[in-house]
Amino acid sequence: MVGTIYRIQELLNAGEGYIGQTVTVAGWARTVRDQKNLCFIELNDGTSFGGLQIVVEDKIANFEQVAKTKYRIFTQSDRKHCKESCQRIIDRNAFVIIGQADPEEYPMAKGVQKPETLRQKAHLRPRGNFFSAVTRIRNNLAYATHVFFQNNGCLYIHTPIITGSDCEGAGEMFRISTIFDNDVSKIPQIKGKVDTTQDFFKKEVNLTVSGQLQVEHFCISMSNVYTFGPTFRAEKAHTHRHLAEFWMIEPEFAFADLFDNMEAAEGYVKFCINYILQNNMDDLQFLDKRVKPGLIDYLKDIVSKDFVRCSYTQGIDILLKAQQAGAKFENSDIKWGMDLNSEHERFIAEKVFQRPVFLYDYPKEIKAFYMKVTDDGKCVRAMDMLIPQVGELIGGSQREERYDVLAQRIKECGLKLEDYGPYMDLRKYGTVPHCGFGLGFERLVMMVTGVENIRDVIPFPRYHGSAEF
Amino acid sequence: MVGTIYRIQELLNAGEGYIGQTVTVAGWARTVRDQKNLCFIELNDGTSFGGLQIVVEDKIANFEQVAKTKYRIFTQSDRKHCKESCQRIIDRNAFVIIGQADPEEYPMAKGVQKPETLRQKAHLRPRGNFFSAVTRIRNNLAYATHVFFQNNGCLYIHTPIITGSDCEGAGEMFRISTIFDNDVSKIPQIKGKVDTTQDFFKKEVNLTVSGQLQVEHFCISMSNVYTFGPTFRAEKAHTHRHLAEFWMIEPEFAFADLFDNMEAAEGYVKFCINYILQNNMDDLQFLDKRVKPGLIDYLKDIVSKDFVRCSYTQGIDILLKAQQAGAKFENSDIKWGMDLNSEHERFIAEKVFQRPVFLYDYPKEIKAFYMKVTDDGKCVRAMDMLIPQVGELIGGSQREERYDVLAQRIKECGLKLEDYGPYMDLRKYGTVPHCGFGLGFERLVMMVTGVENIRDVIPFPRYHGSAEF
Repeated sequence: MVGTIYRIQELLNAGEGYIGQTVTVAGWARTVRDQKNLCFIELNDGTSFGGLQIVVEDKIANFEQVAKTKYRIFTQSDRKHCKESCQRIIDRNAFVIIGQADPEEYPMAKGVQKPETLRQKAHLRPRGNFFSAVTRIRNNLAYATHVFFQNNGCLYIHTPIITGSDCEGAGEMFRISTIFDNDVSKIPQIKGKVDTTQDFFKKEVNLTVSGQLQVEHFCISMSNVYTFGPTFRAEKAHTHRHLAEFWMIEPEFAFADLFDNMEAAEGYVKFCINYILQNNMDDLQFLDKRVKPGLIDYLKDIVSKDFVRCSYTQGIDILLKAQQAGAKFENSDIKWGMDLNSEHERFIAEKVFQRPVFLYDYPKEIKAFYMKVTDDGKCVRAMDMLIPQVGELIGGSQREERYDVLAQRIKECGLKLEDYGPYMDLRKYGTVPHCGFGLGFERLVMMVTGVENIRDVIPFPRYHGSAEF
Repeated sequence: MVGTIYRIQELLNAGEGYIGQTVTVAGWARTVRDQKNLCFIELNDGTSFGGLQIVVEDKIANFEQVAKTKYRIFTQSDRKHCKESCQRIIDRNAFVIIGQADPEEYPMAKGVQKPETLRQKAHLRPRGNFFSAVTRIRNNLAYATHVFFQNNGCLYIHTPIITGSDCEGAGEMFRISTIFDNDVSKIPQIKGKVDTTQDFFKKEVNLTVSGQLQVEHFCISMSNVYTFGPTFRAEKAHTHRHLAEFWMIEPEFAFADLFDNMEAAEGYVKFCINYILQNNMDDLQFLDKRVKPGLIDYLKDIVSKDFVRCSYTQGIDILLKAQQAGAKFENSDIKWGMDLNSEHERFIAEKVFQRPVFLYDYPKEIKAFYMKVTDDGKCVRAMDMLIPQVGELIGGSQREERYDVLAQRIKECGLKLEDYGPYMDLRKYGTVPHCGFGLGFERLVMMVTGVENIRDVIPFPRYHGSAEF
């Protein structure tokens, strides 16, 4: 509590706890219904899905003013708590109107609006049921993330956003500069080439695409660590699953192998879902009704089942047998070595196992250089967590901790060993087995809220052609 | 716990809890002392300041190998827990050396090293006592931040990093682009001007300097909110208190005034310090001994006292009287309307009140446009939290919620009203009193650890001319 105002969530959660007490609440009136000598107000302060029902009697001094306001007045008042979710004004001067919104001018239409429409008014959309429910769930998923990793002894490491390394290799990057001027003649140049030594960092720098390499530095000294911060991809994809700026969670565990990694990832996802089931049931009920029918059962189903561990090789066998038995795939050219499409991943999770599945030990040709090579030399110890109706939610791997093997893989992948000096040092001085995974936070929010478009689960979405507000 | 490895912190904290049990631990050997038939190893896994003392007897199979390793071997073993912080190897094959570091090559010298030296090896510095202590405290301060705001009903809002608005006005900004090419002829141009419509966001965008304006959007609908994320300043200051990339905490409270704001800020700082006093005493003892003598008493003193509330006008009076009584200031031209220097702020906190002080109600000419104008029209409801030995730790204000007054202030400050459309909408539709503050997270870490240079409290510091690792 900040100041002396009671939050509506607290009153609603207290059940009969506040009956008979006088408290001050404040919020925004969602509806005002005027009935002769009474006026009914639904007051919402954003702390919970449901608002507080307030009964205003005509003996209060400003009854006329309160009652004639159409809707969306913004109020603060002392009132007596009568029963759960209902308040009765008891003092003549108790009801204060702080601000009003002219209903003629107010840009937010009453009733249900399309997410596309709301996105155009990103500064006002948390006032509606849909986006405030998403915001409360997003908040609790972020908090649950910290609680889970802290409870499991992981240290939160702030890996850098500005990176001088262009060798993270996870996608197109944004360049950062202080010498990029709209007047081209003002850009410091030497014979038509930008003089990068005059830039702020005296070299070319970019926005990070992943904190993994840097968080590994801390793993190989502090054991278990994680990052949770913004990451960037300058990809022009206009899909419902991509953003140019999004938040990523990347834990890294020392003295742990790929199966420990799966256990941690499963534990994390279940912890998050359970946290929302316990703390946001009102929001989920709304989303279940309006956004994704069956959402609550879907989430309960995920947490109730053990996630399957299935090797990539087994996965290919399963797909081939299914194909022989008549299953149809858009990409029907299924063979060992292929990169699975979303349809294949979802088939395995939804149709075959009907629960989340870890697919692991992928052909090394389709995975990143830093993943640990298996004994037969064909695969790397990578894992993807596949979720029914979602597809891949988490990707991770055991890291290659052997100096020589890693050096070899860097060469094989066409990268330069000298770009990875600090990273190689970790293998040179006191190397240990370690593993980790990465999770796009918005993907988790989408799964838990049932929202289909990633632009509707982040406060101010950034994507190709759009950086508004 | 991830996997089956016990963390050393857990064993040390358990007191006698694990006596007689066999557990597996893993970590990096800080020292190995060889004594005839015995070998003593101090094993550290980064989870606590103190390591685990391990006694290895010569009956284990690889005793020779273990004993002859100079130092910094990296071990994993099954051993019996004998008494607090001491382990005895019980199984012949129990001690496994995973990786080694050649002491001749290892870049980290034994013994105390200067912070400047460690900074050059940022990827290895968490292996030493100094930076691992700072890292553990930084982690706990970040977590305490979330716990405090969540416990007080504040929602965590991820405000955007990439911003299309250049009107935040808090400092020099970094530009972000995908069309900035080192070959100047490849930059899309129209008559010598960069064609910004061809850039990724189809306009000029920058890295954020503050999430305040955007988090206010959420405050005026969800009540209490906060941001905690990276912010950027392209300032070439080479001081021990400035970074180009740093993390900021910015809470915003609805239906709250400047005094509520002070209460929240005081509560927050005390909560953080108490959290560290309770959870990081070993780290603090080391820092007290090696970095800032008296650190623990200093922190205990801060949390034990009520912070003072003193208006700017009173502050000026106090300084003038002190000057008349003989106090010397480098800037001796003290008068109402001036911007106080650090020496003045510290004098008030250290000499006059000997505790943290909120200075509030500053002349509007020296503060930002969005702060609420006082009734006499001379001041704004701004506050600074001044801390002995530190100076300003927190700055905040009540926000101007009156549309007309805010519009007037924007004009007075030479800004354009049309740049603040969404921000003005908040005052147009259901405005409420609200306030908030901002805190550079690294400043908090510096205060709590006693570390003097901000580059030594962040994993990978970014500043003018440097974006390494």
